[in-house]
Amino acid sequence: MDISEFRRTGHELVDWMADYLRDVERLPVTPDVQPGDIRRSLPAAPPQVAEPASQLMNDFGRLILPGMTHWGHPGFFAYFPSSASPPSMLAEMLTATIGAQCMSWQTSPAATELEQVTMDWLRQMLRLPDDFTGVIQDTSSTATLVALLTARERATGFAASIHGLQDVQGRLVVYTSRERHSSVDKAVRLAGYGIEFLRLVDLDGNFAMRPEALAAAMATDIAAGFVPAAVVATTGTTGTTAIDPLRAIGEISRRHNAWFHIDASYAGTAAILPEKRWILDGVELADSFVFNPHKWMLVNFDCSAYFVKDVDALLRTFSASPEYLRTAHDAEVANFRDWGIQLGRRFRALKLWWVIKSYGVEGIQAIIRQHCDWAQQVAGWIREDERFELMAPVPLALVCFRLRPREGEDLAAINERNKELLTRVNATRQVYLSHTALDGRYTIRMAIGARATELRHVQEAWSLISSSA
Amino acid sequence: MDISEFRRTGHELVDWMADYLRDVERLPVTPDVQPGDIRRSLPAAPPQVAEPASQLMNDFGRLILPGMTHWGHPGFFAYFPSSASPPSMLAEMLTATIGAQCMSWQTSPAATELEQVTMDWLRQMLRLPDDFTGVIQDTSSTATLVALLTARERATGFAASIHGLQDVQGRLVVYTSRERHSSVDKAVRLAGYGIEFLRLVDLDGNFAMRPEALAAAMATDIAAGFVPAAVVATTGTTGTTAIDPLRAIGEISRRHNAWFHIDASYAGTAAILPEKRWILDGVELADSFVFNPHKWMLVNFDCSAYFVKDVDALLRTFSASPEYLRTAHDAEVANFRDWGIQLGRRFRALKLWWVIKSYGVEGIQAIIRQHCDWAQQVAGWIREDERFELMAPVPLALVCFRLRPREGEDLAAINERNKELLTRVNATRQVYLSHTALDGRYTIRMAIGARATELRHVQEAWSLISSSA
Repeated sequence: MDISEFRRTGHELVDWMADYLRDVERLPVTPDVQPGDIRRSLPAAPPQVAEPASQLMNDFGRLILPGMTHWGHPGFFAYFPSSASPPSMLAEMLTATIGAQCMSWQTSPAATELEQVTMDWLRQMLRLPDDFTGVIQDTSSTATLVALLTARERATGFAASIHGLQDVQGRLVVYTSRERHSSVDKAVRLAGYGIEFLRLVDLDGNFAMRPEALAAAMATDIAAGFVPAAVVATTGTTGTTAIDPLRAIGEISRRHNAWFHIDASYAGTAAILPEKRWILDGVELADSFVFNPHKWMLVNFDCSAYFVKDVDALLRTFSASPEYLRTAHDAEVANFRDWGIQLGRRFRALKLWWVIKSYGVEGIQAIIRQHCDWAQQVAGWIREDERFELMAPVPLALVCFRLRPREGEDLAAINERNKELLTRVNATRQVYLSHTALDGRYTIRMAIGARATELRHVQEAWSLISSSA
Repeated sequence: MDISEFRRTGHELVDWMADYLRDVERLPVTPDVQPGDIRRSLPAAPPQVAEPASQLMNDFGRLILPGMTHWGHPGFFAYFPSSASPPSMLAEMLTATIGAQCMSWQTSPAATELEQVTMDWLRQMLRLPDDFTGVIQDTSSTATLVALLTARERATGFAASIHGLQDVQGRLVVYTSRERHSSVDKAVRLAGYGIEFLRLVDLDGNFAMRPEALAAAMATDIAAGFVPAAVVATTGTTGTTAIDPLRAIGEISRRHNAWFHIDASYAGTAAILPEKRWILDGVELADSFVFNPHKWMLVNFDCSAYFVKDVDALLRTFSASPEYLRTAHDAEVANFRDWGIQLGRRFRALKLWWVIKSYGVEGIQAIIRQHCDWAQQVAGWIREDERFELMAPVPLALVCFRLRPREGEDLAAINERNKELLTRVNATRQVYLSHTALDGRYTIRMAIGARATELRHVQEAWSLISSSA
């Protein structure tokens, strides 16, 4: 592909992109395909000779697009939606073209320093403590693993990575709540703690961790000779956006010298609103903190903001400096390859920079505030409708609800009715919602946060749910 | 940013991208900046109000671009260059716009199935065994960690992730060569084996692992009651592209039931050439294999191709299925969140698909073959020039050389002279080369592989080195 073909195809693509953003709401949000449909439509063997650019675009539109779930669709209310914004998409064009490899300062000086600057902007926007230093990770799964590996090393005096975890005396234990994200379990397993040594602390009536239950669990373990290594609290659980009480949890963690990690993957963005900053009350007690600008802060996936207090502990856990990576400036700069798992790193700071500049802090605040307001409206409609009930508080922009049980209806029956409702609503392919289970009760989740979603889409979604009920 | 501003800015960006690709060779390959220069040029606090798109582009050109190392510059011969191609850059535009979250089939059916299809294309292109199944990881660092975690679990009957590695009897040991990549050390530390239990096996005269030394190391450990858990061989070491003898290493690994992982990050791409396929002789004995299409196969970073034989072992190590991620199709489909560390995954298969279609297998072969030919030419020039000496064989497209020691010159002096030469050459900012140490000998590395590099750039680089010597 020569420059002129690249230029021509690029312009066609930009028009396609703009048309897609304009028209996506007319597409079904989820595709009508069965497992294997797409695969069977593609050649089993790779093409031996080059195909023209026109065919690439044509095949994409014909074979791939009809099989996509449209995460940017305004009717996307499932999981936590993606708020990827036009400026972040444009920034990815530059990132792809420059193709910088951001493993060390030397291999990408401006990218490294822009990452330092934008991460500090985020720190200020969330009013995180001065002694937090930021680095971009790809996802929260990775960030939580990074936190639990650093915790493991600190708890063992950095011996596990040298002599092996098998050599360590005193069983290490990790604490989190019953409503934590699955990535905590995964990180506990991968870091070698063993899932049996993950304590799932009990919840209060709002699905948040009970600090007294945490303290009790720790006391029991310490009496048994175990070592509390880490506590993972969640600000905005995936199930219901419950807010764990950080200050109380942080104080207990400190008392026992356990690494205190806060998973605010989704909810962290809301802390840029002064009226929502309370969700991070006590964050200064944390050893590490993660939130995802790629979830709700208008940044394209992937971009996970990880903050850490003890940078030295992080570096002792992750640094590796073979001869072929050494450079003259190593002593004076941040080499972000030493701040996480991957050596190779994309230039993710660019899209973060563009999004913050393009919206301004006030512009981002206005959008997040709107999402929260709309969620309150939905909650209001549910409260006014006797057929439904709210299943959890609505502190942010996720509404958890279900059809109310009929008199004498057992759990299996009401769960089945709600499952049928969700299936019926999603089958329209006009909206996409997901579910969770709360104490065994099937619960429908409506998460507002896709960038294209407007109030009318929220209203239409509720009409659809209401008429399907 | 509304649709019309997005469209207008997008078109401007495409012209910038095309101009950049056309003109990048006129830029200095590395920037003339000191640590802190860029950071000081940026505001310490985030902007409160929105800035227009024109300012984003302007600030990028004014503040960031002059501080970038240009990985797509035809004079980039350092590390292993990036071969990111125009079609892969275009594909990233679609990926960014669609913003699919490829964690499960349900959340991205076409993306999941396109990943299965393109990974099988790669398997065919490299003539990997039929029983290898592929999944895209972000980087080789991650892939090698995935391999060593799976190895840890298999070696412990999947007990480490349940009861904890602290509970496991029989010390687990990992084997690799002295010239392995640093990501192996990092993975050994992170997976909890402990770096003391990574055996660095001796090399032959070509910097490849000596199988007899591996067998001897294993015998010693087994006699001591240790358990060989994994062996990591390298096809194309970072230092010199040495090719470890896979068949002999694989047979030894099998004999002791150790997980056999092959790191072909850079060199794997060369195996699509029939005349280079020998580098993978014995690959069928491997349990896992990784190579990076983002390094030498014209694909944009990041895209690492990980192949595994025992998918069940991988899934038992990495799967996590909480209620809110369960879908109706789970039993029939691949949910790639269970195939690695991250839950969230970008739609990386799209660029792989576009690159393979855009070049065809023959087109990719022609480019790789050219790079290897040019490396032979450089090696020839070095052989003919008495001032220089080759430091290692040149099986692929990396040439390792140095100024030949003068009579009686000690190691420190000759190292210093070579370091000075490299510094002088790189200071022109017309080319960028890196170095390594081979048995303590400072060695200059010239890696050919940037997509924009033509023979004339290789010739000019050699003229510059020669005249600087």
